[in-house]
Amino acid sequence: MKTAIYPGSFDPLTYGHLDIIARAAKLADTLIVSVMRNIDKMSLFMPDERATMLRCAVDEQELGENIEIITSEGLVADLARGLDTYGKPVIIKGVRDAQDFYIEQQMAALNQAENMMLETLLLPANPQLAHLSSSAFKEFARYGGNLAHFAPDFVVTAVKKRITELVN
Amino acid sequence: MKTAIYPGSFDPLTYGHLDIIARAAKLADTLIVSVMRNIDKMSLFMPDERATMLRCAVDEQELGENIEIITSEGLVADLARGLDTYGKPVIIKGVRDAQDFYIEQQMAALNQAENMMLETLLLPANPQLAHLSSSAFKEFARYGGNLAHFAPDFVVTAVKKRITELVN
Amino acid sequence: MKTAIYPGSFDPLTYGHLDIIARAAKLADTLIVSVMRNIDKMSLFMPDERATMLRCAVDEQELGENIEIITSEGLVADLARGLDTYGKPVIIKGVRDAQDFYIEQQMAALNQAENMMLETLLLPANPQLAHLSSSAFKEFARYGGNLAHFAPDFVVTAVKKRITELVN
Amino acid sequence: MKTAIYPGSFDPLTYGHLDIIARAAKLADTLIVSVMRNIDKMSLFMPDERATMLRCAVDEQELGENIEIITSEGLVADLARGLDTYGKPVIIKGVRDAQDFYIEQQMAALNQAENMMLETLLLPANPQLAHLSSSAFKEFARYGGNLAHFAPDFVVTAVKKRITELVN
Amino acid sequence: MKTAIYPGSFDPLTYGHLDIIARAAKLADTLIVSVMRNIDKMSLFMPDERATMLRCAVDEQELGENIEIITSEGLVADLARGLDTYGKPVIIKGVRDAQDFYIEQQMAALNQAENMMLETLLLPANPQLAHLSSSAFKEFARYGGNLAHFAPDFVVTAVKKRITELVN
Amino acid sequence: MKTAIYPGSFDPLTYGHLDIIARAAKLADTLIVSVMRNIDKMSLFMPDERATMLRCAVDEQELGENIEIITSEGLVADLARGLDTYGKPVIIKGVRDAQDFYIEQQMAALNQAENMMLETLLLPANPQLAHLSSSAFKEFARYGGNLAHFAPDFVVTAVKKRITELVN
Repeated sequence: MKTAIYPGSFDPLTYGHLDIIARAAKLADTLIVSVMRNIDKMSLFMPDERATMLRCAVDEQELGENIEIITSEGLVADLARGLDTYGKPVIIKGVRDAQDFYIEQQMAALNQAENMMLETLLLPANPQLAHLSSSAFKEFARYGGNLAHFAPDFVVTAVKKRITELVN
Repeated sequence: MKTAIYPGSFDPLTYGHLDIIARAAKLADTLIVSVMRNIDKMSLFMPDERATMLRCAVDEQELGENIEIITSEGLVADLARGLDTYGKPVIIKGVRDAQDFYIEQQMAALNQAENMMLETLLLPANPQLAHLSSSAFKEFARYGGNLAHFAPDFVVTAVKKRITELVN
Repeated sequence: MKTAIYPGSFDPLTYGHLDIIARAAKLADTLIVSVMRNIDKMSLFMPDERATMLRCAVDEQELGENIEIITSEGLVADLARGLDTYGKPVIIKGVRDAQDFYIEQQMAALNQAENMMLETLLLPANPQLAHLSSSAFKEFARYGGNLAHFAPDFVVTAVKKRITELVN
Repeated sequence: MKTAIYPGSFDPLTYGHLDIIARAAKLADTLIVSVMRNIDKMSLFMPDERATMLRCAVDEQELGENIEIITSEGLVADLARGLDTYGKPVIIKGVRDAQDFYIEQQMAALNQAENMMLETLLLPANPQLAHLSSSAFKEFARYGGNLAHFAPDFVVTAVKKRITELVN
Repeated sequence: MKTAIYPGSFDPLTYGHLDIIARAAKLADTLIVSVMRNIDKMSLFMPDERATMLRCAVDEQELGENIEIITSEGLVADLARGLDTYGKPVIIKGVRDAQDFYIEQQMAALNQAENMMLETLLLPANPQLAHLSSSAFKEFARYGGNLAHFAPDFVVTAVKKRITELVN
Repeated sequence: MKTAIYPGSFDPLTYGHLDIIARAAKLADTLIVSVMRNIDKMSLFMPDERATMLRCAVDEQELGENIEIITSEGLVADLARGLDTYGKPVIIKGVRDAQDFYIEQQMAALNQAENMMLETLLLPANPQLAHLSSSAFKEFARYGGNLAHFAPDFVVTAVKKRITELVN
């Protein structure tokens, strides 16, 4: 497997994302983590901020030398087509429960309709991290919860700071 | 089975909807496809536009002579009661996965509480079309994806035009 | 809808089965309840006994004048083909939860591969009866449980008698 | 079990909520029903109004002498910590289907990460009430549906009145 | 909560069972762990052996002073009725995923039909233990897998010994 | 990805298996399809027969030059350990619906407990093949169904022959 793409919002990243990144980086020659800019969704951080945090966390935790962090807009299938020079890329996604599975099964079929050769690989989430989600992270941050198990310290600090700015 | 009602938003229609329509039209003497006007939801097309597109697609694809397209507001149970002169109508819905099933199971119970004799029939989606949804259609349209597998050409053209208008 | 087939083991029948029969009989001109003879499965009653109990229960509870009870062997798709003179038949199945849904979704696809025009309609189980199954019926009978909510009296009596014979 | 907390939005309460309250009150010495003030969500009633309606319904239906109704803000884990003087409290939630189960499984893990000793007990919903939800209640109220099966009369009256005010 | 019953096969026990026992013992004044003798199922250990192993594990791990281990036959609802002198007992079960949930939802309804006041409480499995099952334990034992994470040492030793006896 | 292992019973192979093989062979340098000898399960074909059929089908359909077919006994985790000289192998499995997902999620956790570095990748089944299973294949063969959509001709012939031998 030459190139794998791990697309997501990462708003903000969690230890669940970092686990998928570490595992995916062992499977592919190059892992491209793509922060998708979704114009509709309200986000806590700008795409560039999210990418910077991913870069820092990946380096700090030494998850692999072969990991690139990019931001991207539009369809993952188009992103994959644009990366064909890296060797035919595949998509990698983490799956926590059956609801995630339905969504990824549908997305895999849509991506294949768009780009016939585009394969999607699903990694079952680490059970100890399966309860972590970006939205739970933000919810717990809003109400002063303990955030240390969600993400590395510098991310927790950034989330707390941003939540405080938004409230004031 | 005299009359079947297939309610939905159809914003916009997909080949998934047309498959359910074609199959339901073979089961009932009259199939009434009802575009529900939901005042809350943001929609791409007005209810009348959606009904017109359904009419065109149903005729173009020759899905059946016994298909009526209407727009309706409020509860499907009330719509069914109003159609009693057509013979006791039933509701028909397509189901793509377990998540759809839970929703329709709940809706069937609610409709039965409202109108005791009102039966709901579920058609398992054609597996080759189960990934198609109106929201994926709009998402792929927004980002310039290949739309030919979502719906007939004239629908694709209308969706692209409307998306362009909204962006500008 | 001219003819509907409701296939099953009915070993033994429960109020859940009778509910599906009553509802299906309102949807079709003729409802054919087919007791499938499955050579592999250990059964409590012979197919003919199960059919007789269904006949009695359907008559006793006056579920409809348009209900035929048969026994059949082999594929439901073949049974449907043989019934084409009754008007193109459809299959009707009850669905209690997501596990049932997966099984019926798979069976519907298999039956359609075998007989392209063969449609499967799913009826969501009545929530008050969704816990009833033939195997729970037998399990509770074996341990002297209260069986009145599983099936009509004469079925309960027959099940108790048979279980006693098997134990001795 | 000394103290159980049943948290929720209760906007508005349904017979489904009252069933969980009645059952939970039999399990614990004290049941604390906590109306969570969620600053983000659009609500029909203010938290205090929801708490008052719960109080009335609990008294009217005589669900138990050991039920306290409070309003609370923030994390349920923090609420539980604050109630430690009542004896180590547990959380009780109702679960209607697999989708509810995934959500509560995730919430239980998040609450345990926040407060290691905090246990979550799930009560399977009464099948006859499993189709009732606050959002269906509001939807049916908006369109003039029959509401008597959703909640006690005084709640139905309040919901109708509020919906009318919002529309005008 | 005076008395809770945790029924199961425990053939053999796993750390997953012990986790549920430890948590349930904190919720009830008395926890009765009931090894169900199921005459049909092929088992690795006799009910009395399974009960003895549970007793040892509960004592060794100091899971609580209020835990009784019994063997029982027949319906859990009947067992609960017989224990009424202990105060109205409830059933406690662990739930690992949606499939477990469906089964327990059905069992809860069956037990309530048998014994109207009998409540079932579901504990979401500890995510780190959710992959452990008695059947996986036996399968891994048969093929010489690492068993240390399944159960305490003395159970692993007993399982290996019994598997060896069965093969020879 | 150097080496991927696709373990299974393949009793007998279906087009669903061949689709996973073709896709997995594009992801890894070497794909090892391992026919697991399971001493308990009743099987239609001997492990060597199943492996031979896989070899023929893979060659006939030209699914890839990098595919090895083996038979193996015991734990997949042990098989993977033995193949470490091929570069750290991963397991690949196809997933058709949520039920498959739960099973594979559990197996992935068990395999990781056995062999910490062992990764499992899940491929969502091709929707047009998701209804195919070895057990449905055998069931349809027993009753004279149309088998052409299950597997290549030579497999269908072998299955029919074997079923006839078993019946006589």
